[in-house]
Parts: sequence; structure tokens; C-alpha cells
Amino acid sequence: MTAEEARGRLLALGLDERAAGVLVAHFEDAERRGKRGHGLSRVEWLETQSFDAAAEPRRVVVEEGFERWDGAGALGYLTLDAIVEATLASPPARGCVVVAERCFPTGVLGYWARRLAAGGLVAVLTATSPRRLPHPDGGPPLTGTNPLALAVPSSDGRPLVADVSMGAVTHGAVLAGEARPEELVPFGGEQAHKAFALAAGLELLVGALAGPEPGAVLVVARPEHDPVPVFRELAAGCRLPGDSSGPA
Amino acid sequence: MTAEEARGRLLALGLDERAAGVLVAHFEDAERRGKRGHGLSRVEWLETQSFDAAAEPRRVVVEEGFERWDGAGALGYLTLDAIVEATLASPPARGCVVVAERCFPTGVLGYWARRLAAGGLVAVLTATSPRRLPHPDGGPPLTGTNPLALAVPSSDGRPLVADVSMGAVTHGAVLAGEARPEELVPFGGEQAHKAFALAAGLELLVGALAGPEPGAVLVVARPEHDPVPVFRELAAGCRLPGDSSGPA
Repeated sequence: MTAEEARGRLLALGLDERAAGVLVAHFEDAERRGKRGHGLSRVEWLETQSFDAAAEPRRVVVEEGFERWDGAGALGYLTLDAIVEATLASPPARGCVVVAERCFPTGVLGYWARRLAAGGLVAVLTATSPRRLPHPDGGPPLTGTNPLALAVPSSDGRPLVADVSMGAVTHGAVLAGEARPEELVPFGGEQAHKAFALAAGLELLVGALAGPEPGAVLVVARPEHDPVPVFRELAAGCRLPGDSSGPA
Repeated sequence: MTAEEARGRLLALGLDERAAGVLVAHFEDAERRGKRGHGLSRVEWLETQSFDAAAEPRRVVVEEGFERWDGAGALGYLTLDAIVEATLASPPARGCVVVAERCFPTGVLGYWARRLAAGGLVAVLTATSPRRLPHPDGGPPLTGTNPLALAVPSSDGRPLVADVSMGAVTHGAVLAGEARPEELVPFGGEQAHKAFALAAGLELLVGALAGPEPGAVLVVARPEHDPVPVFRELAAGCRLPGDSSGPA
């Protein structure tokens, strides 16, 4: 599917030009970074989902150091885009916790975190999704894949962006037939209890702050130091998280 | 070593009664939870470290939604204890980002996060430590083991506390001769790039906010929902992170 075709099909779903543009930009970035399961193929998936194409996310609490948003039926992509734009337009003096209720689907969390880092802010972002990961001992799915993205700006213009799903494979890979549903377990093999613990902790963190529907929690802060260039030097050419063409 | 012996040896290092009590309470909790590497044996290790036994952590910035602390040469245990006590004494209206500069060693992060959850607050805590984990492709150590603790209160009195180090083994296990130094790599086996990405992201998050010396970053927030009991029911008796006698 081309970006133009995607745009047309999103408009046909009732999204307006701006919203369709937000989604296409996200899908194209996912394709460029090799995250196909979050790329343009998602348009077809969206055509099977029910959502309110006219809904707009609302910022319902704004205080120094804290915001609460409500997706209000809009696609999570649009809620995160609105939060990123509002944060870049008016960055916190020091730091801010942002809770997003009813925020799904959220796509590639590193994409939103990277935009904040490109704007000079440190960002930590997590989001829940339908329960798909079971306990390492087995049983029903208990948590979403619950990715955690960490983005740190750099004076050399190359922020470090880690974006790690707690699943051994992605739901997108399952959707694309590249992985079997039973492979969608916490990553780590013999140490899968660690990824499960992170998935459970993030699940309940978001649940406690954003409520029972999938949501997101973002922490943004102004950096006081510039550790990325020194870190890259120490890593001496190893590919680091978020660098082009590679995992995590 | 008994708790009484530990207390005596800590006092002999120049710590006062209160400080020694903070450390012993932490070490005893670590022992009870099977985290021996962070238990009373650390007293012997502390006797080999240089630190200012009279130093007191200072809160250098206090704003709505943001605090900055400086360990000021005190042991990280004491800085985290001071932050936990101050936060419980005056919890944030909504949420707060707390940066701790010069905060080492920090011990079991789940211990501090659990105390905040026991006081009704959601807590996310990470901390850096000397570089010990190499890139999965090899090379020099690039990051600390950089644990991430997530604690969520529960109306049933049993908070969920996830506390995950990004190392396949702990530095404490290496110190205790239970693991070889070369086993201290990012966890996850074939997917170690995920744990490395988290370790690197947390390393640079803390570095950007707290500076070049090991530090800590805490996010606390007031929960609006109570997802833990439902989650425990769904997990139907599986041991969950932070439950007695088990990993993570």
C-alpha cells in the first residue's frame, strides 16, 4: 500500500485531512524503521475496528507538573499526537506527568518519544493494549505487550531512543502471519519472569492512573546534562537503541 | 551477620543511630525477600567504600510536580529514604518527578517503591550504578544494571511491586561468588538487545536529569483507580511480582 492509497482509505473512514496526515506520517516512519507491523498495513486493520472518526482528544486537567487527557473515542495515535504537539508548544518548566485515558492504538511509542527528544525534552512513555501476554507459568493473557519508550536528546542531533515491547514477538507480527499466537509471550526465555514483571508493573501503573481501558502514561522533563555523545563514544560504533535499521 | 552486629559495624563507620537503622531495615527486608546480595553482607562491602558518614542529602529544588535532591556525599540508601519520607509526609496533589543527583548505592529499588505504594502512591523508580553491562555484541561495560521498580497500591493491602534489573545476574551475586563476572550481561539471551535497550535508555534518562555520577529518578502519582485486585483475580493464584519469596 502506498502512502497516498493509505491517506485515501483513511479519509474514506471519515478521518479529516489533518488526522489522516498524522496517521500516515506515523505509519511511514514505522516502515522506514523496519517496524512493518505498525506500518501502512495497519490501515486495513483500522478498517475492521470501530472508532469515532470525528472524536477529538481533550485535555481535561492542566496543572504545573501534571496533565490528564481523555482520548474521548479518538484513535490513540491522535491523542498521542495532540499530547506531543501541546507539550512541544508549551514545555514544562522542569518536568511533567501526563496521563492519557482511553488511548488506543498507540502505534510505535518510540515515534512519539523521539519527537519530544527532537524538541529537546527527555521522554518516558508507556501504553497498555488488550491483554495478550500470559504469565511465564502459563494461563490466560494477563497484560498487554506494554512497550516502554525512553528518549533522550543529544547535542549531536542524534537522540537515543529505546523502545522495548515486553513480548517476545509483536502482535503486529502475529497479525502479519510472521509469528504464531503462542509465541506472543514475555521475552527473555528462561528469564521471561523479568519481562513479565515489567509488563505487569506497567499494566497496573497505567491502570491505576488512566483507568480500565487501554491508556498511556508519559513523563517529560528538561534535561540538565548531555550524556548521549559521551555514551556513543564509549560504545565505539556499536549500534545503539533507536539508531537506523535495527531492533529496539 | 546478625542485624545487631550490622548495626554495630555501621555505627563504627561513623553513621548515626538513625542512619544505621535505615540501612539495617533495608538489608533485613532484602534478606527476607531472598535478595541476599543486597542484604546484611553489604555491611562488609560498605567497609571497603569511601563515603562521608556525616553527609546528609539535601532537597535543592521543590516545586509543584518536581523536586531535585542532592545526595551530597551521603549513601544513596539515605537519600532514597529521605525522599520516601518527605514524599509520604507531603504527597503530591497529582504527580511529581523527583531527580536525585549523586545517589549511590541505592540497594533494592523495590524496597523504596513499596514503601511509597504502602502509603497509597504509585511509584516508578530507577537508578544508575557503575557501568557493568556490555552491549550484546560485546565490548566494554556501557551501563549499570539499572533496575526499574514499579509499585502500585492495592485496596486489598497487597501492592504489586515489580523490580527488574537489566542484568542476567546481579552484581551482588558476582560479589558473593555465585556468578562469574562474564555472566553480568543484559538478560534475555537471544533477545538481550531488549534488556540492553532498556538499560541504555534508563542510563541516559538518569544521566540527562541527574548528571554524570550515579543517580536516581522517581515518579510518584496518586492513583485514580484500583486495578490490582482484579488483576490478582485474573492471575488466579499465579505468583505476581513482589509477592513473597520469588524473583522480580
